[in-house]
Amino acid sequence: MTLEQLVEQIKSKRTYLCVGLDSDIQKIPKHLMDDEDPVFAFNKAIIDATLPYCVAYKINTAFYESRGLNGWASLEKTIRYIPATHFRIADAKRGDIGNTSSQYAIAFLQHLPFDAITVAPYMGEDSVKPFLQFEGKWAIVLGLTSNPGARDFELNELADGNGRLYEKVIRTVTGWGTIHNTMFVVGATRAEEFTNLRRIVPHHFFLVPGVGAQGGSLKDISEKAINEHVGILVNSSRDIIFASSGTDFSIAAGEKAQSYAVEMADYLK
Amino acid sequence: MTLEQLVEQIKSKRTYLCVGLDSDIQKIPKHLMDDEDPVFAFNKAIIDATLPYCVAYKINTAFYESRGLNGWASLEKTIRYIPATHFRIADAKRGDIGNTSSQYAIAFLQHLPFDAITVAPYMGEDSVKPFLQFEGKWAIVLGLTSNPGARDFELNELADGNGRLYEKVIRTVTGWGTIHNTMFVVGATRAEEFTNLRRIVPHHFFLVPGVGAQGGSLKDISEKAINEHVGILVNSSRDIIFASSGTDFSIAAGEKAQSYAVEMADYLK
Repeated sequence: MTLEQLVEQIKSKRTYLCVGLDSDIQKIPKHLMDDEDPVFAFNKAIIDATLPYCVAYKINTAFYESRGLNGWASLEKTIRYIPATHFRIADAKRGDIGNTSSQYAIAFLQHLPFDAITVAPYMGEDSVKPFLQFEGKWAIVLGLTSNPGARDFELNELADGNGRLYEKVIRTVTGWGTIHNTMFVVGATRAEEFTNLRRIVPHHFFLVPGVGAQGGSLKDISEKAINEHVGILVNSSRDIIFASSGTDFSIAAGEKAQSYAVEMADYLK
Repeated sequence: MTLEQLVEQIKSKRTYLCVGLDSDIQKIPKHLMDDEDPVFAFNKAIIDATLPYCVAYKINTAFYESRGLNGWASLEKTIRYIPATHFRIADAKRGDIGNTSSQYAIAFLQHLPFDAITVAPYMGEDSVKPFLQFEGKWAIVLGLTSNPGARDFELNELADGNGRLYEKVIRTVTGWGTIHNTMFVVGATRAEEFTNLRRIVPHHFFLVPGVGAQGGSLKDISEKAINEHVGILVNSSRDIIFASSGTDFSIAAGEKAQSYAVEMADYLK
């Protein structure tokens, strides 16, 4: 999906919601466990119910890999079920030496029909660039993450005057790609950093996890981060997909997604 | 596998070789392509031929994920085929917020019988600690990698007097685990850093990729990094597994592994 297509989707649907399919088999409703593939059955119902209220889905690969081959099968069925009208993100946090990152890029951007993959930047240029070689596909590079551990390294000041590590990562990575193939992960729990971030990268999209279960404020982020082409996708996972653990789980998920969308429409005015 | 068991294996076999199963389906011998699972057939023959000369195998998950469900099936068959006498590493470079890293830990250290997984440290403490919760299992955290991109961030000097980023990563991570559950990845192409590294972490094991195809010197590293309980696993992938592309590929791989082992026995004197 191109930048223009993504922005068009957001503007026509009045939402920049990304639904995170962190579909932990331990947490899905009990009545689904008789299904041949309970996780896919769960995802299918969640997707059907939330499609009108979001523009993106994010599959957290860890929750599939933890079930081995069966989990990977659920992942493949899920990604192939999401319509191409929606931006499809592999939240995989991959990154390795060049020849290996190329294989990860093939895995998610070519073999599977994801539009984007999250990428860990620690190993530098040759670990990120292989994800930027596919027309209409995206690398979403970790900038400043939503978790407490962001303090350990990401927020460390560098000696070269380039600010903190995450700022240098973002500045450096913008030199490897363009606003048409690169986004950054910035946690919703870091609202105080968004004004600074928009100075560094005024035109890039941010993928913003951390509202809901992790406590970030949608209002704060939206006010500080929305740019001329919207420029943010805000993800919510547990808050939406586990809104109810009963037989009404998909209805509850749809309602929760809708409530995010209603709020977002307001910030898009 | 415990530290004591690993050291015992190394000392009795006189080798600290790790064979990297970066089993690219494009590069395996043509005559295997008729097999039901060519990559597993390839790995099986490579493992049989190299078992006496190595103490560890490293499965590079990217080369399996790039083939989707079929690739993941090859990975599962391969890990279950490697005997428990050998240290089994998932070279997966995972790392995410706590609840997600926990799922990756389950995927590789519990659902699959790996002894260790490589972990990307960018996201800090809660992204690494979930990998340290399994008895006899290991997190191998990226320190200083072998690729050119290591210059971009890993080698950046920090303003807080903690040296360069990779040095702070290694120092910090040693506070989260012990020499019984934590190792570090240090590239063989960084021989000049090993003396410094041994000052920071005299007792930890290093996993050292980058000899062979990437150009690192086994002699250099061994002289600088071997400690009182050996303390290094040196990985070679392409150099061994693709030593021949003919029907003699496993014989050639065995010979190449043996030649590494012979050289290593010398450095262990």
